[in-house]
Amino acid sequence: MANITKKVSWSSRADETGILGEGTPLLNGSEQLTHSRQPSEGRSVFQIGRLSTVDLEEEITSDEDSQRGRPNEIPHNEKLLSLKFESLDYDNIENQLFLEEERRMSHMNFRCLEISRWVVCGLIGFLTGLIACFIDIAVEELAGIKYQVVKKNIENFTEVGGLSISLLLWAVLNSAIVMVGGIIVAFFEPIAAGSGIPQIKCYLNGVKIPRVVRLKTLVVKVAGVICSVVGGLAVGKEGPMIHSGAVVAAGVSQGRSTSLKRDFKIFEYFRRDTEKRDFVSAGAAAGVSAAFGAPVGGVLFALEEGASFWNQMLTWRIFFASMISTFTLNIFLSVYNKNPGDLSNPGLINFGRFPVDGVAYNFYEIPLFIAMGAIGGLLGALFNILNYWLTIFRIRYVHRPCLQVMEAMLVAAVTATVSFTMIYFSNDCQPLGPEDKKEYPLQLFCADGEYNSMATTFFNTPERSVHSLFHNQPGTYNPLTLGLFTLTYFFLACWTYGLAVSAGVFIPSLLIGAAWGRLCGFLLAAITTPAPLWADPGKYALIGAAAQLGGIVRMTLSLTVIMVEATGNVTYGLPIMLVLMTSKIVGDYFVEGLYDIHIKLQSIPFLHWEAPATSHWLTAREVMSSPVTCLNRIEKVGTIVDTLSNTSTNHNGFPVVVQVSGSDEPEKLCGLILRSQLIVLLKHKVFVELARSRLTHRKLQLKDFRDAYPRFPPIQSIHVSQDERECMMDLTEFMNATPYTVPQETSLPRVFKLFRALGLRHLVVVDDENRVVGLVTRKDLARYHIGKHGLEELQLAQT
Amino acid sequence: MANITKKVSWSSRADETGILGEGTPLLNGSEQLTHSRQPSEGRSVFQIGRLSTVDLEEEITSDEDSQRGRPNEIPHNEKLLSLKFESLDYDNIENQLFLEEERRMSHMNFRCLEISRWVVCGLIGFLTGLIACFIDIAVEELAGIKYQVVKKNIENFTEVGGLSISLLLWAVLNSAIVMVGGIIVAFFEPIAAGSGIPQIKCYLNGVKIPRVVRLKTLVVKVAGVICSVVGGLAVGKEGPMIHSGAVVAAGVSQGRSTSLKRDFKIFEYFRRDTEKRDFVSAGAAAGVSAAFGAPVGGVLFALEEGASFWNQMLTWRIFFASMISTFTLNIFLSVYNKNPGDLSNPGLINFGRFPVDGVAYNFYEIPLFIAMGAIGGLLGALFNILNYWLTIFRIRYVHRPCLQVMEAMLVAAVTATVSFTMIYFSNDCQPLGPEDKKEYPLQLFCADGEYNSMATTFFNTPERSVHSLFHNQPGTYNPLTLGLFTLTYFFLACWTYGLAVSAGVFIPSLLIGAAWGRLCGFLLAAITTPAPLWADPGKYALIGAAAQLGGIVRMTLSLTVIMVEATGNVTYGLPIMLVLMTSKIVGDYFVEGLYDIHIKLQSIPFLHWEAPATSHWLTAREVMSSPVTCLNRIEKVGTIVDTLSNTSTNHNGFPVVVQVSGSDEPEKLCGLILRSQLIVLLKHKVFVELARSRLTHRKLQLKDFRDAYPRFPPIQSIHVSQDERECMMDLTEFMNATPYTVPQETSLPRVFKLFRALGLRHLVVVDDENRVVGLVTRKDLARYHIGKHGLEELQLAQT
Repeated sequence: MANITKKVSWSSRADETGILGEGTPLLNGSEQLTHSRQPSEGRSVFQIGRLSTVDLEEEITSDEDSQRGRPNEIPHNEKLLSLKFESLDYDNIENQLFLEEERRMSHMNFRCLEISRWVVCGLIGFLTGLIACFIDIAVEELAGIKYQVVKKNIENFTEVGGLSISLLLWAVLNSAIVMVGGIIVAFFEPIAAGSGIPQIKCYLNGVKIPRVVRLKTLVVKVAGVICSVVGGLAVGKEGPMIHSGAVVAAGVSQGRSTSLKRDFKIFEYFRRDTEKRDFVSAGAAAGVSAAFGAPVGGVLFALEEGASFWNQMLTWRIFFASMISTFTLNIFLSVYNKNPGDLSNPGLINFGRFPVDGVAYNFYEIPLFIAMGAIGGLLGALFNILNYWLTIFRIRYVHRPCLQVMEAMLVAAVTATVSFTMIYFSNDCQPLGPEDKKEYPLQLFCADGEYNSMATTFFNTPERSVHSLFHNQPGTYNPLTLGLFTLTYFFLACWTYGLAVSAGVFIPSLLIGAAWGRLCGFLLAAITTPAPLWADPGKYALIGAAAQLGGIVRMTLSLTVIMVEATGNVTYGLPIMLVLMTSKIVGDYFVEGLYDIHIKLQSIPFLHWEAPATSHWLTAREVMSSPVTCLNRIEKVGTIVDTLSNTSTNHNGFPVVVQVSGSDEPEKLCGLILRSQLIVLLKHKVFVELARSRLTHRKLQLKDFRDAYPRFPPIQSIHVSQDERECMMDLTEFMNATPYTVPQETSLPRVFKLFRALGLRHLVVVDDENRVVGLVTRKDLARYHIGKHGLEELQLAQT
Repeated sequence: MANITKKVSWSSRADETGILGEGTPLLNGSEQLTHSRQPSEGRSVFQIGRLSTVDLEEEITSDEDSQRGRPNEIPHNEKLLSLKFESLDYDNIENQLFLEEERRMSHMNFRCLEISRWVVCGLIGFLTGLIACFIDIAVEELAGIKYQVVKKNIENFTEVGGLSISLLLWAVLNSAIVMVGGIIVAFFEPIAAGSGIPQIKCYLNGVKIPRVVRLKTLVVKVAGVICSVVGGLAVGKEGPMIHSGAVVAAGVSQGRSTSLKRDFKIFEYFRRDTEKRDFVSAGAAAGVSAAFGAPVGGVLFALEEGASFWNQMLTWRIFFASMISTFTLNIFLSVYNKNPGDLSNPGLINFGRFPVDGVAYNFYEIPLFIAMGAIGGLLGALFNILNYWLTIFRIRYVHRPCLQVMEAMLVAAVTATVSFTMIYFSNDCQPLGPEDKKEYPLQLFCADGEYNSMATTFFNTPERSVHSLFHNQPGTYNPLTLGLFTLTYFFLACWTYGLAVSAGVFIPSLLIGAAWGRLCGFLLAAITTPAPLWADPGKYALIGAAAQLGGIVRMTLSLTVIMVEATGNVTYGLPIMLVLMTSKIVGDYFVEGLYDIHIKLQSIPFLHWEAPATSHWLTAREVMSSPVTCLNRIEKVGTIVDTLSNTSTNHNGFPVVVQVSGSDEPEKLCGLILRSQLIVLLKHKVFVELARSRLTHRKLQLKDFRDAYPRFPPIQSIHVSQDERECMMDLTEFMNATPYTVPQETSLPRVFKLFRALGLRHLVVVDDENRVVGLVTRKDLARYHIGKHGLEELQLAQT
């Protein structure tokens, strides 16, 4: 939590008026909450946004309006920034121990290290591919059994009547499976809920999310995602692959498992945040690669979400992991499909081959694509807003694990019921072609040799449905089917995302988009009947899918490449890019992307790419936390223990200062030391007994710090006797002697750039005498953002 | 050239023994040259590499050996670092003027800026696409005329004898065309020679290469590349597209042309290095995109070569420019090909469609691919070594423009002669299929209805030849043809690269690789005759092309993506990646990539991704230049003029210091100011007359600096009278008040990371009292590199 002196003096107007406790508006009105003042300096943040008093009054009015008109709910932690998240250290701690080790290493040692990095990346790719393969096969087999059972049951009852029993069977089956998935997630590892993409984004950004890369999380995630998909929820198994890959990477690269209490004594060099992050990027990329068969897309995802500093060798390693991952999946799936060597399953989802011969699209279709992008942006924004409200509702009312499991079961039952109803009342019968490879065609009330086309979308795993929508012949679906499907699936998917189950939002988004995209294609073909050129509904389904997905998640370059790689056809690059761009622009006008919304709702101090545009007004002096708790280079043990034990501040990094003894000179900054390092020092009793004035301990090695990484014990678990409290501790060897510093006048964008580019955790602000005057941490920077009224500031909160 | 106090005291052993003047070995032996000592500190750089004295003695022996055994030549500027290259400022100069402007800007202003950035990127893409289109059409038409003339001539003489006249015609035609290209390059704009990729790499890296992004360079480049390709040299027109795109970007983004003396008064905000670099990245990407039809590859190229700080919005804009570029080219070429709307020409080179149905490659072929990668790496290294020797020869003996033109003409004549000879003596006749679309099939001595297959590779533009090698039916070429072609083309291409003509090395590399790759495929098919599975020579041609190109240029991720996009087939991703990786590893074992060799030979201070691995021994204290010329915050004009006029130092950045008046306190660092800023201040006479103690000048605006950017006048052109010399200048408003600083103990990797990640030009080293003790510039960091004997140091030289 870094050296933040909690700015309790900065009370928000909301606090002053007590609005926060009574009821505040949800979306529009809530922005005002954040206008905090800084009475101590007499300058309100309003001035930064340069709001006149007239604006202020207007705002108050609207505030009152919203109090009257809106539901009486508290946005749980909307517009707050939680202090509970720690940062990761993506800057090497260059203390004497580290430098000594580096200096001992020869060029050959560095070569070996480089080779082991490659080996680790290969392993990450391989294991991620295996996991993807396992999930795929498990889902395939289990869903197969389920659909066979239900299908047989439906067929039995279709003629004799009593289909309600089939419905019941279906609903109960689904609920039961989802219950299992819900229980393991809600009770054993809540962090495994959802797709995990927001969490990995945060991790790569430098926020420590507790337990996010543990083995247990992986196990729950994998089991959970299988249950969710088999349970028939409107979810995909692709998003969770990214999280799984990241966990694999974090595990493999450390050469040990704390959960299993095994230490293989390898890769010890990689036991620090900097190295671990590189591997986690590779793992995430491998996950994307396995999920979509998109190795380049995976690399771009890792870069887009994580990296700020582009390093050629790192990128190349990430690409290697991605390639190995998709290749492993491909090989194993080809064996599973009894066609070994046929490398045509590069990913979990297969968009299938789009025709490459002839004209892919015409010049004059491009405006249509852009229009579809706009529709996708609108629908995506709607999806996100609905999900936002739902999430707030969940945070308030559905936070107990058993309630969460029950909600998941309810959703499963409703999904089954809705699906059944849709199929039941649909009379869209299509002839069963000889080449039809749909595995579970439901005949229902159709004539013999025909099947119900609504069932091909509902009575199937979502991946298969996407494939059908992309590739089935024109005329397979009638427009009513598509329209109804879009509508119901939209709400189902929206309700489903955020449940306490492991599941991704990619596939449902693609499915919704493909459905309305195909509808667009159908309508266009109907309007321009004499011109059959536009009649390829599969193409419009693809564009619709891209638009909808882009509108919801708002990823840009990586998503384009993922889509292109998944279609295996470079020709669609330009339209997909245009569509994604349009949907992002349109969507961003209303609300942020889904992942960003969830990150914000958890009050995570996430650093964006750049400081807010209008933040040149602010300088380090204003954003820094002060006063700072500093330690002396040779400090009393008691002082250190007290400082670390102070739960009201709970600082994580301490500037180390030195004073020329006996002089009047001010204390100069000479280093920076972390809580975790101090803990290790205390644990190993690295004390100097003043009486004898010599070292009483063995020399501490870098290894001792690595062994303790990353789960450093709390200060409370370390016993320090009263005698020991009187000893001194020499921090010289262990502190980072050359921390980055900035002068007080540095503008916020400049501070931000330094902080973000180098992945810092603490940045010391000094005056022109090199005295410590403040400390800038992640939260000090993440606080500022552009709101409706210019620059706004989030409040820091302990929750 | 920054504040480098030339370290003349650091004499190299080579200097001491006078080896440099007499003759030194070329490749292996030359490394010893660089072991410089630092007698003043008594610590030799040898200690850094930890060479024992035994090693030292051995080395001296080998040194003597090499003096005896090797040719008596001086590597012109091998292992030197030139002081003549200035750096670009990729860190914003945040002085008061800048901050005031930023603070005046509202959120809406920033939005508009963002939109204009998009507009500029769109324009860049459009214009780059147009240029590519122009080059393509010009080459197509002119080469068509040439080949028709020669073909008719050959056909006339085939029967009556006297083909030597045809040869003469061909050789003279080629030489004449190349002469034109050579003259404009050698006499008017030498920087337009070659592919321009090394220059753009340097520009993006932060090195200012004079005249590299000027309009004149673009014109010469475009005309030159047309001449080279039409002149039948073993060159491609793809590489120069990257340079062209970069020039377009630099021009468009500035909203004016200094060459044409037109200022459109738009985009003035973009007139600084930081913004310009972003656009140049986009231009380079657009160039790649147009050249290969590879928009994603273009983005990755720009990132791989240029960006160190990844910014999502920037990447997205670069992608936009790339897409527009390939799309523009596609549209215009479709119109030119009289098939408007058929978007099947995304790039200048078209690899053609590889079959997507069925199995692309088998699992067990992968070792073969890797072996081919190794061959590519070996051949690439050979190519680079030969070219390296050739380049040194050229630097020494062929530096006069007329000699350069003559060499180019010679190469053109030899190319024609060799081609003709090869065709003449080849008796590889193939039946002329009805579907054959070869435009210039030469019958020569073949029977009617047959054509000479050697001629399809030699008597064609290189792009067409590549296409034929990839796609012609198995059996089109006999192995002898392929072998001979590989051999001759290899040497021709090697001789051609580095000539004073605009030309790229991509296509020749692809062509060589495709030829021997096809040969490999043929041999494999011959060995495994009963198993016709391996008999697709086109596939092996593709793999060979990738291997050869990778072996020569050593680009990694971007090249993979470029190749994949150019084939339009994602399936080949994995083998291409494996091949490129292998060829890079094998090639790197022997020698660097071609572009890096040429960068090194020009002694450019290029910063790699990371500091050398074993450089933790060094600290800022050792690498910095000192003493530093500092200026006072309020400085006498005369002092400033004298400092700027000092040609022996020629500093470019000056720390500004301040001393509490009348106190004994040391001078504290308070800012940093650039030569270019001081020049503008002097030009506008921003002086304070002490007598009247008031400002006598109008207030200087940021606009004044922007108008002068980027061609600031030299100090000699500014007249300062004796009276004015006595005035004072107040630098407060103009200096960057918050320069980045590091303490003296900071390790080199840490300094390097800060410098590289933030794109700095000057980094001030301070002591713990905030006094200036040194300055780190690009050359101080680029000096260190890993050589054969551990860490080595390049010498700084004025040339």
